[in-house]
Amino acid sequence: MKDRKFEEVTLRTEEIYKGRVISLQVDHVRLPNGETATREIVKHPGAVGILALHEGRMIVVEQYRKALGKNQVEIPAGKLDAGEDPLEAARRELEEETGFHCGKLEHVSSFYTSPGFADEILHLYWAGDLQKGEMNLDEDEFLDCFEITLDQAKALIGEGRISDAKTIAAVYAWQLYELTGRFA
Amino acid sequence: MKDRKFEEVTLRTEEIYKGRVISLQVDHVRLPNGETATREIVKHPGAVGILALHEGRMIVVEQYRKALGKNQVEIPAGKLDAGEDPLEAARRELEEETGFHCGKLEHVSSFYTSPGFADEILHLYWAGDLQKGEMNLDEDEFLDCFEITLDQAKALIGEGRISDAKTIAAVYAWQLYELTGRFA
Repeated sequence: MKDRKFEEVTLRTEEIYKGRVISLQVDHVRLPNGETATREIVKHPGAVGILALHEGRMIVVEQYRKALGKNQVEIPAGKLDAGEDPLEAARRELEEETGFHCGKLEHVSSFYTSPGFADEILHLYWAGDLQKGEMNLDEDEFLDCFEITLDQAKALIGEGRISDAKTIAAVYAWQLYELTGRFA
Repeated sequence: MKDRKFEEVTLRTEEIYKGRVISLQVDHVRLPNGETATREIVKHPGAVGILALHEGRMIVVEQYRKALGKNQVEIPAGKLDAGEDPLEAARRELEEETGFHCGKLEHVSSFYTSPGFADEILHLYWAGDLQKGEMNLDEDEFLDCFEITLDQAKALIGEGRISDAKTIAAVYAWQLYELTGRFA
């Protein structure tokens, strides 16, 4: 299929909000049938998540998520700094949030978290050859770091304590690796 | 861990924007250390995605995603209507976007797409016993519907034409099902 077949042409963009992490705009577009419509779009700098496996366990962090109003157990993750290489961001976030340095770091997959309304992309990496060092959290970051087995990960998913896209994807990738020796 | 240990207490909420699909608010919060911070939060009604398997192939739709500025191949999906049961939404979206009616429909997993800034939850279902009927798209919805094998799905991921969280999760679940007979 031609990529332009369903293209929506931007007629004008309303800048609604420019925040610390995200910004919001409304694009007025011309649809393929000639009609017009609006598209609400959140701009995000992109993020990384790390499937860090240490002696058969996955390193996770538990933190409060204000958007959800509750704690969540997730893989270590964080936003890209401006111009930052995702691989370096993954190394940095793993060290800051968990204190672990990694000897190996490989790309697993990258995905848009909410293509219907946001441009956020999440780059998922596998980290191995881990050495424990010191945590170094951002000043507004509060979390616990611990390690879980695959069975514990599945139990936490069942309890709803693990319930975000990147961690669910990481647990799927880990299961596939255990079954096939590959992450995809 | 006590769930309230890292809780961020809302001091006040600024309503920034109320849109057609999403709304944006900024919460001013008190952190566990007594300091204050702001949290930018997108509110979303929630969504469903359907891993619909028909004679060993997955049903997908290709559509333009304005937030990404390009076409994407994704599993059928859509927002929840107000008060709508996710299972019924999954049946409705599958029929509207692909024309397929399903004899079986089972929950696979639910996940928050972007817990750092949004409350969107995506409920993923598996649909089986499929019968082809008529598509019935929303007036501002333009898409192609087709079926792909698991190898084709992996190739589309490699080309970046499949690259959203729900479809990546669905392909993982499908692979696990092929290997183990279970979706998780």
